This record gives sequence, C-alpha cells and structure tokens, in this order.
Amino acid sequence: MMLEICKKAQAASVQLAKLSTEEKNLTVCKMAEALEANADQILSANKKDAEAAKAKGLKTALLDRLALDNRKIANMARCLREVAEIDDPVGEIIKTWTRPNGLMIGQMRVPLGVVGIIYESRPDVTSDASGICIKSGNAVVLRGGSDAINSNIAIGEVLRDALANTAVPVDAVQVVSSTDRSVAEEFMRMRKYVDVLIPRGGADLIRTVVEKASIPVIETGTGNCHIYVEEDADLDRAMPIIINAKCQRPGTCNAAEKLLVHQNIVEQFLPVAIAALRKEGVEVRGCKKTAAIVADVKLATEEDWYTEYLDFIIGVKVVKDLDEAIAHINKYGTKHSESILTANFDKALRFIREVDSAAVYWNASTRFTDGNQFGLGAEIGISTQKLHARGPMSVQHLTTTKYFILGSGQIRK
Amino acid sequence: MMLEICKKAQAASVQLAKLSTEEKNLTVCKMAEALEANADQILSANKKDAEAAKAKGLKTALLDRLALDNRKIANMARCLREVAEIDDPVGEIIKTWTRPNGLMIGQMRVPLGVVGIIYESRPDVTSDASGICIKSGNAVVLRGGSDAINSNIAIGEVLRDALANTAVPVDAVQVVSSTDRSVAEEFMRMRKYVDVLIPRGGADLIRTVVEKASIPVIETGTGNCHIYVEEDADLDRAMPIIINAKCQRPGTCNAAEKLLVHQNIVEQFLPVAIAALRKEGVEVRGCKKTAAIVADVKLATEEDWYTEYLDFIIGVKVVKDLDEAIAHINKYGTKHSESILTANFDKALRFIREVDSAAVYWNASTRFTDGNQFGLGAEIGISTQKLHARGPMSVQHLTTTKYFILGSGQIRK
Repeated sequence: MMLEICKKAQAASVQLAKLSTEEKNLTVCKMAEALEANADQILSANKKDAEAAKAKGLKTALLDRLALDNRKIANMARCLREVAEIDDPVGEIIKTWTRPNGLMIGQMRVPLGVVGIIYESRPDVTSDASGICIKSGNAVVLRGGSDAINSNIAIGEVLRDALANTAVPVDAVQVVSSTDRSVAEEFMRMRKYVDVLIPRGGADLIRTVVEKASIPVIETGTGNCHIYVEEDADLDRAMPIIINAKCQRPGTCNAAEKLLVHQNIVEQFLPVAIAALRKEGVEVRGCKKTAAIVADVKLATEEDWYTEYLDFIIGVKVVKDLDEAIAHINKYGTKHSESILTANFDKALRFIREVDSAAVYWNASTRFTDGNQFGLGAEIGISTQKLHARGPMSVQHLTTTKYFILGSGQIRK
Repeated sequence: MMLEICKKAQAASVQLAKLSTEEKNLTVCKMAEALEANADQILSANKKDAEAAKAKGLKTALLDRLALDNRKIANMARCLREVAEIDDPVGEIIKTWTRPNGLMIGQMRVPLGVVGIIYESRPDVTSDASGICIKSGNAVVLRGGSDAINSNIAIGEVLRDALANTAVPVDAVQVVSSTDRSVAEEFMRMRKYVDVLIPRGGADLIRTVVEKASIPVIETGTGNCHIYVEEDADLDRAMPIIINAKCQRPGTCNAAEKLLVHQNIVEQFLPVAIAALRKEGVEVRGCKKTAAIVADVKLATEEDWYTEYLDFIIGVKVVKDLDEAIAHINKYGTKHSESILTANFDKALRFIREVDSAAVYWNASTRFTDGNQFGLGAEIGISTQKLHARGPMSVQHLTTTKYFILGSGQIRK
C-alpha cells in the first residue's frame, strides 16, 4: 500500500518540479478556495473525530488542536494564500564561477522530490504542509494520527479535487488512510521514493521516527528553551521578556521552559521574578538556592532540567556565571531557542557563539523562533538538528541544489 | 567503549568550535609534518596490514588502495597542507536582516560538532578526513575496516601526538581500534553525541549504514554515471569525452558507466565509438539495437543498467530521444554525475533541469565531479543524497548554521 502511494508521489514530483511559479501559485490559491467552499464537508468529518476523541477521554489541549471551526478553516486558507506570496526558491541560481580550464560551474536550487510528514492530531497540518510542499515543487505524503483521520481524509479529498483542474498532478498530495502502526513503519523505510521525513508532534513520535526510519529525518519541534539573566541585565526589561517567553503560548515549542539567573542578582531579582510568574499562574520548580531564597518553591529534579513542560511550569536555577549557564543549556537543552539578557556585548557574543542551538537571542523573547516572525514565510516545523536545515523550515528549506557544469569538450587530465 | 569515545569527541568539539582559523591551520600543518616525520612507523604498520591482506587473498585493486609508500604519505601531508589553505567557513555571517519590530536577525555558519566516518581499506582517509574535520571545527571519530586497522591506528597515533602540542584537543581525532561489527553498530546509534555519519566505501557498506544508523547519514560515492550523445552532438568532440570519462580512472565514482546514444546517429556513431572504447580495453555490454549494429557485443541484462562496474566495462544503450535518455538516467542512475553531449541549448537545458543528479554536465567529462576540480578544495566524499549537501562535500559542507537574534526587549504580540 505505501509502496503504491510513494511511487505515485515520486511520479507526481517529476511533473511538479517542471512547473512555473505562476502555475504553482495558482494551484495553491485554488486549494485555499476549495477549503473555504467545502468547509461543511471538512467540519462534518472533523465532528466525527472530535466526538470520538471526547469519548476516548483525550486531554483538553489535544481536543483543542483537533477541533476545527470556520475560523480555523479560514486560517488554513489564509496560510495557503500566504504561501503563494512567498518567493519561489526553485530554479534560483545560487552561485556561478568559472574554472581555469574554462568549465563554467553553477549551483541551482531544485525541489527535494517527495516529502513525508508524520504528524499527530492537528488536521490543519494536512493543508499547511500540502501548500508548502507544492510551492517548493515537492510531492507530499501525509500520515496523520488516528484521532484526526476523518478530518485529514476530508481535507485531502478537498485539496486533491482542487488539484484536478490545475497543472499540479493530483498525486502531489496524498493522505494515508490507514493509521496502522505497521503502515507507518513501512512508510518510514521508503527511502527509494521519499527524500525526507518530517515528524511533527511530541517527543515520543519524533523518537520513534528517528529510530525506525531509513529515510533521512529532520527532527523538529522539541523545545526545552532557556532564558539566562546575567548580573548586568536590565531587570525592568527582563521581566516582560520572561513572562512573554513563558506565558504567551506555553504549549508552543519556542516557549521558555527554564530560567537561569546569575548568582550575584538572586536576592534582588528572584523574589520579584517568581512573584511575577506566579501572578500569571506559573508553577515554579527551583534549584536548592532558589528554594532557599523564595518560599514554597518545589525542588526541581534532575529530570526537570531535561523536561519540555509545554505548560504553565518553569524551572529556575541559580548559576555561578556565564560558563555555567552555557554548559547547563548545552547539556540539558534541545538545541531549539535560548536567550541571554545582558547589557554586556562580550557576554552576549560568547553566548551567541557557544550555545549550540538553532536560534540564540540577545535581549528578546524566544517566542520569535517561527518562520513568519523571522520573515521567512510559513514553515513546516522548527528543525532542532544540524543537518540540512536548522531552525524554521520554510519553503526554501524544502529544496536541495544541483551543480550544472557547462563545457566545451573539457576532459580531466 | 563507543560511548566513551563519542563523549570525548563531543567534549573536544566544544573546544574546537571556539578556535581561530590560525590555530586550526597551524594544527593541520603540524599534522602534515608529523606524518612525514613518522613515515617509517606508519609504513611498518601498513606492511603488517598489506601482508595479512595478501595472505587473505584480497583483490589487487583493494591491495593497491591499502598499500602505503613514501609517495602516498607525502600526498597525505600535501592534502593536509591544502586543507590549511582553504577558507575557513566557521563564523561566516551568511545573511543579516532587520524585522519591522527592530529585531536584527543573522545566520552564522558553525561546525556540525562530531563527524563519524565509517570506511573500508583506504588508510589515507584517516588523515584526509581528520584534516577536513579539524579545519571545519569538527571532532572526528574514524572507524576503518579490519584490513587497514594497523595502518589506521598508527596514523591516528601520529596525528594525536601532533595535536598534543596544539590548541586542538587530542580527542578531536579518534580512531576506533575495534573492528567488531557490534562496535560499528553501537557507533551508528550514538545520535546523542555524533551529528553526522559519512560512510565511505562500496554500495554494501553504505546500505548497511543507511539501514542501521539512527544518526543522520550522508550517502556518498556510488556513481552509475551516464553520458548521453544527442543526434546533433559534435561527434569528434564526443569521443575524447567518452574515453576520458570511462577510462581515465575507471575505479572512481565519477567515471562513466553507461553510454546512451540517440537512435538517429547509431549507424554512424556506434561502430566508431565502440571500436575506440575496445581499443582502450573496455568491454562493451549493449542493448539489442547496439548488438544488431556492432559485432560481438554482449547483451546487457536489466541488472547491468543498475550496475556501477568500477572497471573497464561500459553499458551502451540506444534511446529514442532526450525524453527516454532522461527517464533512463533517473530510473537506473545513482544521482551522481551525468553528461549530455549536444550542440543544442534547449536540449541541454532540459537535461540539466530534469536529470535528478548531483552534477549535470553539458559537453564535458563526468570525471570533474570532485572538490578540487570544482575549486571547492579537498572533499570527504561525493554526496548522492539530497539532504544537507549534494555533490562534493568540502570543508564548508561540514558546517551548519545558527540564527542569532539581537533585540532590545522585543516580546511577541
């Protein structure tokens, strides 16, 4: 079953790679129109999923992600129209040069081919990922979780119907209708047909895909993000940044999960900071020194320092200096986003250089790690690995390059 | 055992990432000196390997790759000195921009961290890879084949002794002394410590690594390369290109393995071309049409079209047109290097765009797919996959990027 799907995807990708920017943009806009025109069909499928999930006792946060309404469908359509606006990376000539023997060499951006997405209960991923993949010239195979299967199939049908009247082959978008684990595992080994696999979801999903896949995987999303307050930080400016990073949307991967504070300012800063966090409803788990300074702080365990809470919880640790802060982040972090609050350029520079994460901030909230916030356009996830793409994976990160070499009979001596 | 090695490599990589270009260049030059000064020690270890390999009945080609002499050691030293000359990619600011909210965003090139190399019987890889990894700021863990184990350990000792008096930590270069398969498999799963795994060797080795590794792998080296002669090609210029691509070094991955010829010129071209190839000692295996035109052509099997011979053998196929040529290459090729010989720009452009390979040539030999030939400097292999790096993997391809974001208290709204 997966073999058939992946073969069709590869065949579609060959056609798709040849299309013009106009043809792709027109298609993505037609997909947006189709979502709006068929909202009822999608919502009725989504209702089935939502009812089954409620009956199963899914957590509220998951139910929220799963449930669609007209506003969410309008957002999905808007996301597609935004994708149409992004510059087309395909065909871009990155560089050209001439060798002493007269060979002219160039490097051209081309689509990856087939992108596989394995995701959990967010049905909007089905349409967002389809738009991003088509714009970047890639076919996509979408394997969503069982909780959203009716929604995903309905969205897939609407999008494929929209493709039928465009230059993009219908099989450029395929939703896997089976949610069997064995089918997913088969999918993960389709190396011959699928060029990259992007898991979107919790840490368990990502770990499974990394372990089982023979297709190259791009790890996304896990964000145990840190904010480090240096002794010379502007403390008035620090609090809004910390509150924003922790509380604006605690369920996102770029939300802060840990607060590190230089030992020289703890007496002055920690009581104020923790009171402000508690006022926002944040539970504080602290190191021994934190607990000694502020009352009623639950002691953080070793496990806490590794944990991405995705909730109104924060771990607070007092550190000796910048060295300890950097070492702590590099040991316990997930290489996502970290911020230093300091007035000192040398310290900021060391933090930026030595913290091994996709996005390193100076005096700003970690919440900006996002394709749109960076100005890159819609993204398919935040890569926390170092190969291929690091940070927000936008349309241009779903491409590769090829060398073209123009000669006039050159042979190697 | 591998856990200890990989942990040490990661610790070394943290130090290495902070070094200046001068410190790294000085180190790589000291490694070159050390190879020359300790040539006797290396050659005597290599003699043990060579004798054992001879007794085991290894093929001549493999014995040639394994055996070192003073000239090869001088080449290894030269390669290291060339690496010192290459521009340091680390710290390069690729791009900066400012967002409407005043955030300044930049993208900086940084080392990957720890590079794992799994290779077969070429001991010079031990030193070449070490130099390229150090220059790019990465620690390297080298796991060579059993046939070259004494040579690899000796080269590793010489290089590590050289590191002892430099800014680069000694554990930036580690040779795995065990050749157990179980140790190799343990290595391939050290995802927490190793950022990329590069297998160098035959198709079987690469397949095993791709199947068993949880670390991201870059596939290198397999080259079933094609030359396609269009009906309007300059046939006088075609023959030297074909002979060069096939015969100059048939054991390399960028050597041509297949010749596709447009049906309209077969009567005129094939007898001449095959005679010229045979004069160079090349065995020709052809399609039915080829065999009908030229005497004594062995019929190629389906398997032949997929095969990288690495030998004085070539597969010859008559195709109907450019479409068939492109389809054949994309079906049977290994996405390495292909060349079209034509006078026609439109055909060349279609070939360049539609052939899905790392390097696509117009009127030149495929033998140029090489870091030095492209002007990129020494390389660690030719990537035939699409993620991260495609084509020659030089020093700059062993880096990743990080975003740095400079703010003045920005929070997300």
